[in-house]
Amino acid sequence: MDFLAVQDFYPEDFAWCYGCGRMNSSGHHFRTRWNEEETLTEYQPGPEHMAIPGFVYGGLIASLFDCHSTGSASLAFYRQAGHALGDETPVPRCVTASLKVDYLKPTPLGPTLRVIGRIAEIGRKKVVVVSELWAKDVLCARCEAVLVTAPASMLQNSSPS
Amino acid sequence: MDFLAVQDFYPEDFAWCYGCGRMNSSGHHFRTRWNEEETLTEYQPGPEHMAIPGFVYGGLIASLFDCHSTGSASLAFYRQAGHALGDETPVPRCVTASLKVDYLKPTPLGPTLRVIGRIAEIGRKKVVVVSELWAKDVLCARCEAVLVTAPASMLQNSSPS
Repeated sequence: MDFLAVQDFYPEDFAWCYGCGRMNSSGHHFRTRWNEEETLTEYQPGPEHMAIPGFVYGGLIASLFDCHSTGSASLAFYRQAGHALGDETPVPRCVTASLKVDYLKPTPLGPTLRVIGRIAEIGRKKVVVVSELWAKDVLCARCEAVLVTAPASMLQNSSPS
Repeated sequence: MDFLAVQDFYPEDFAWCYGCGRMNSSGHHFRTRWNEEETLTEYQPGPEHMAIPGFVYGGLIASLFDCHSTGSASLAFYRQAGHALGDETPVPRCVTASLKVDYLKPTPLGPTLRVIGRIAEIGRKKVVVVSELWAKDVLCARCEAVLVTAPASMLQNSSPS
């Protein structure tokens, strides 16, 4: 917890995501931050997160890209509006419209994974994030994600009880 | 276990996948079968598998499509070679080259999810699977996946110890 991640600031009712919600005790707790002009999410898979022994499960990689991309989109909208994490204005919550993952090489299970994102497009309600997943110095996967602000139909629920 | 799924027949050393490996005690245990000319994977998400309260996590949906697609590719190669599940010939193990998920509507958390796949292309080493995810009678997501037979570089490991 030596840095501020966007997920630390999602409104509590919307911080239950299995991938990145700080309130979800069963989840992965992915955390995404700015690293200068790029976004960064680092994650250490567990030994159970394998595809074939020795390699990371593709579904986990897709999950990591998913939350990294929604988090990057929130960061981008927030910065575009002139805010920085820690401001009182609520951080916007985004959802994924599409996620395209190219698995370039088998991802070794062991190293901490680094996902590095670039804001390729930003509009009023839509962001395109292009990201790479690295295991040490090996580029293992690439993702293009389209994110939108969460629609009103998803925001009617409060926290689960 | 009232039907035969392709994952039941993956060679033991390659049945550890977090998504669909029968040997992985922490995983989802997705199971994929033929349903006439389509492939089918059904899954009941847990209450923790949420994105925003009330809706299924997109990373879980991507995971479900991932294993459904690799399983569908294995089924397709096996049938193409004239085999049916239960034959002595080992079932081929496939991996994902690319996965494109379009999230069409928020997926409600509650109903059992049904993923229905179609073999759109099949070659000697490559299969394209196009799938839909349904929650009851609502089409929530669509996926196009490209699968290939697992490369030799991934098959050197034996089961984890």
